[in-house]
Amino acid sequence: MSKKTKTLRPKARRPKGFEDRFGALASAENALIAAAAGVYHSHGFDPLSTSALEYADCLGKFLPDDDRPNEGVFAFTDDDDQWMALRYDLTAPLARFVAENFDPLPKPLRRFAVGPVWRNEKPGPGRFREFIQIDADTVGAPGAAADAEMIMLAADVMDAAGLARGEYVIRINNRKLLDAILGGIGVPQTNEGAIQRMRVLRAIDKLDRLGPEAVARLLGEGRKDDSGDYTKGAGLDAKGIEAVLAFTQAGAGDLNGTLRTLEPLMGRSEIGAQGLGELRAIADLLQAAGYEDGRTVIDPSIVRGLGYYTGPVFEADLRLETLNEKGEPVRFGSAGGGGRYDDLIARFRGQPVPATGFSFGVSRFAAALHALGRLGNAERGPVVILALEGDQMAQYFAMATELRNAGIRAEVYMGGSGMKAQMKYADKRGAPAVVIVGEDERTQGQVTVKNLILGQQMSGQIKDNKEWREGRPAQVTGARSTLTAMVADTLN
Amino acid sequence: MSKKTKTLRPKARRPKGFEDRFGALASAENALIAAAAGVYHSHGFDPLSTSALEYADCLGKFLPDDDRPNEGVFAFTDDDDQWMALRYDLTAPLARFVAENFDPLPKPLRRFAVGPVWRNEKPGPGRFREFIQIDADTVGAPGAAADAEMIMLAADVMDAAGLARGEYVIRINNRKLLDAILGGIGVPQTNEGAIQRMRVLRAIDKLDRLGPEAVARLLGEGRKDDSGDYTKGAGLDAKGIEAVLAFTQAGAGDLNGTLRTLEPLMGRSEIGAQGLGELRAIADLLQAAGYEDGRTVIDPSIVRGLGYYTGPVFEADLRLETLNEKGEPVRFGSAGGGGRYDDLIARFRGQPVPATGFSFGVSRFAAALHALGRLGNAERGPVVILALEGDQMAQYFAMATELRNAGIRAEVYMGGSGMKAQMKYADKRGAPAVVIVGEDERTQGQVTVKNLILGQQMSGQIKDNKEWREGRPAQVTGARSTLTAMVADTLN
Repeated sequence: MSKKTKTLRPKARRPKGFEDRFGALASAENALIAAAAGVYHSHGFDPLSTSALEYADCLGKFLPDDDRPNEGVFAFTDDDDQWMALRYDLTAPLARFVAENFDPLPKPLRRFAVGPVWRNEKPGPGRFREFIQIDADTVGAPGAAADAEMIMLAADVMDAAGLARGEYVIRINNRKLLDAILGGIGVPQTNEGAIQRMRVLRAIDKLDRLGPEAVARLLGEGRKDDSGDYTKGAGLDAKGIEAVLAFTQAGAGDLNGTLRTLEPLMGRSEIGAQGLGELRAIADLLQAAGYEDGRTVIDPSIVRGLGYYTGPVFEADLRLETLNEKGEPVRFGSAGGGGRYDDLIARFRGQPVPATGFSFGVSRFAAALHALGRLGNAERGPVVILALEGDQMAQYFAMATELRNAGIRAEVYMGGSGMKAQMKYADKRGAPAVVIVGEDERTQGQVTVKNLILGQQMSGQIKDNKEWREGRPAQVTGARSTLTAMVADTLN
Repeated sequence: MSKKTKTLRPKARRPKGFEDRFGALASAENALIAAAAGVYHSHGFDPLSTSALEYADCLGKFLPDDDRPNEGVFAFTDDDDQWMALRYDLTAPLARFVAENFDPLPKPLRRFAVGPVWRNEKPGPGRFREFIQIDADTVGAPGAAADAEMIMLAADVMDAAGLARGEYVIRINNRKLLDAILGGIGVPQTNEGAIQRMRVLRAIDKLDRLGPEAVARLLGEGRKDDSGDYTKGAGLDAKGIEAVLAFTQAGAGDLNGTLRTLEPLMGRSEIGAQGLGELRAIADLLQAAGYEDGRTVIDPSIVRGLGYYTGPVFEADLRLETLNEKGEPVRFGSAGGGGRYDDLIARFRGQPVPATGFSFGVSRFAAALHALGRLGNAERGPVVILALEGDQMAQYFAMATELRNAGIRAEVYMGGSGMKAQMKYADKRGAPAVVIVGEDERTQGQVTVKNLILGQQMSGQIKDNKEWREGRPAQVTGARSTLTAMVADTLN
């Protein structure tokens, strides 16, 4: 590698807005993925893996970030001068896949997918530019049953993630209701109205985080945030702002009650009646299936940020408190969301292909569950077999294999350090026990097993260092042939 | 989405060189990942997830593709004009992570990682620009034991993937031996020699695919391939070419025998003696641990393509035949590889941090195992509950839930089609059975379970369509309360 000595040393640095997850946190992510994939698969969904890169025109522009480069997407030109982009979600690639392989696929198509997605956001605390999603979608099913199933699936995943009743809620809304409200206050349902409508959606989407006062400004002229950045508003007048805010506050009770509250707000709007009808059909199925036990509510403040939703939208909210970057307790909020997107595949095919889906934000959700002690915290380190004599490595390997064959996670210490450093390593790894075979033990055909968890507890109680050493608590020595039994005993 | 009607319809197309995997093939990938992750975790490796994007200077340039844009990497400039790149493997990001977080990490660091990597290759049959890797690495361990462990781990993963003895082999070599040979034929160990050395490595790496004659040309002046593309050679003279080829053919026998064959080829080279010593230490450990039962060989033709290896290199070869793109039987070859890379973290830190690792190419390996009927083929579709009456969806959902609670994969048909289309759907999904509750069954409190697998077998034997219909074989009707029992019975 003499070539390298010419170059200056690069500075090892993670790009801004990206994160590394190591150990228990990564295990929590894997556990959440396994739980969700298990739910989806048991419901008949099949896995699909598509590539991270797609032609940009196939992904379309549905992110709300129109003030970011490439509208919030990481994009570049390929050799052949076509624009490629990193997927910003798993739904747009699904639409491309379905449109490209339409005829041979079973319809409805039920697929789940998991993988990283990228958003070219302005880096900031808690805002990540790459995160893992896990999605389930049903393509080719127009009815409310498919939407209701998505909501039930979302609840089932929350259950599978170990959450109890009352710790989460799936909020449901229908964008058609908002269309009716906007129609009532004169926002046109044409191309000119599209940008204004998107701004309204984005403003409502920030209700949870910013509160109604700030959202009122975003619905009106615009708003300057704490960092001084100005966001142009939707340009509604006072009456319009009031109508939209009143609508968003009309719900969040039980399913039927909220439907009754919403009905008069829709007036004679045809699209409003359609939206209410869809919500009613979904609510009926949820009630019949027993999901109206506090797990599902209709909440008109839920709109979801993505541009491609056409009707029902859903959001899974974690109601537990976690700590924010400043260490303050905050409601965690959205763990995922979804909705119906009947036009996304029509973009390619010209004929409507109804579809509905749900997506969990694995990285953020797993981090919250992990912080709450729900996932990955039980993870403990391996039993470490100390490597005290350089020429005995084969014996240490044999011991580790024996332990693993008994289902015990185990490794041989791999460095060339002395015993003290090896014990420190075992501590750092969270090892529950170490196996010690020095020359004395070896020549006598013995092994020593030291219980590090018990040892740590006891070291807190015993003050006298000498007493501690002589008593050697939490440590047993026995015949080499009893190694696995001794370790298993120590771990129980 | 009125905004969209203005734009022309995009053509749904997967970018060249990328692939979609759906259903059983994707399941095979997941199964292989779970098997490998299980092996690594049980050996004390902890999971690490890093982002797909890294600063390009942190990844370095170690791919052999120096005639491709950005030397084979997908790269672009970020907002702040820094070059970012999609990782080309999982090792370079590990080096960045270790260098960035050096002090608090346990040393040695044992981590495994899984995820997609990207190569900006010229698209071609069987050459993919995105594939999934799963890696295990030990950082901070200089000794042969860490290398030997990597080789044993690779064998353990092949075992966990369901391969039998003789179906795979782990080939081992040491780049220092080749350095000795190149020193002997006058290739300088300086910067000037680096490019020539890399060309030699790349030529040898193609032995399996192109054979010795083509490789001889790549070691000499150069070679024009079938497509007419010219590859510049390493510029060795006839004697040099002969020496290199003789070296690559000196092994592949049992560990000790190959070491004896190689010894005289090293002459008095110091680096050659060092390389042999390392191989001997690895071989001793493999023998002691019982891995020299045909699972491991020393093979000087193995060099691995990546530029960062500094000593021992490994390759896991699947010895079974699969079919190539033309449907011809071919030896599958490499399922993964690895080696020691003692200088990769030193790039950042200026002081050596020894490291060794192994990487499986999940996508390619899983596809081969799947084609061989080893992984994912047993996957069967869900039991499909037909949706024959639109107002009975809640009942169908309840049935599916019952089946799932008994551990049976089940779904309700989600479209609005008639019975014939629903049966066709069930066939296409590979459903083992369908549950039929029409109006007749419902009013009588009954359900019908139809065994599709048995039904298919029988329909091949019975010629008379009328006989078939009247007999209704492979179909049972019973009380609604016996649904789960009837389905379970059908599946056994």
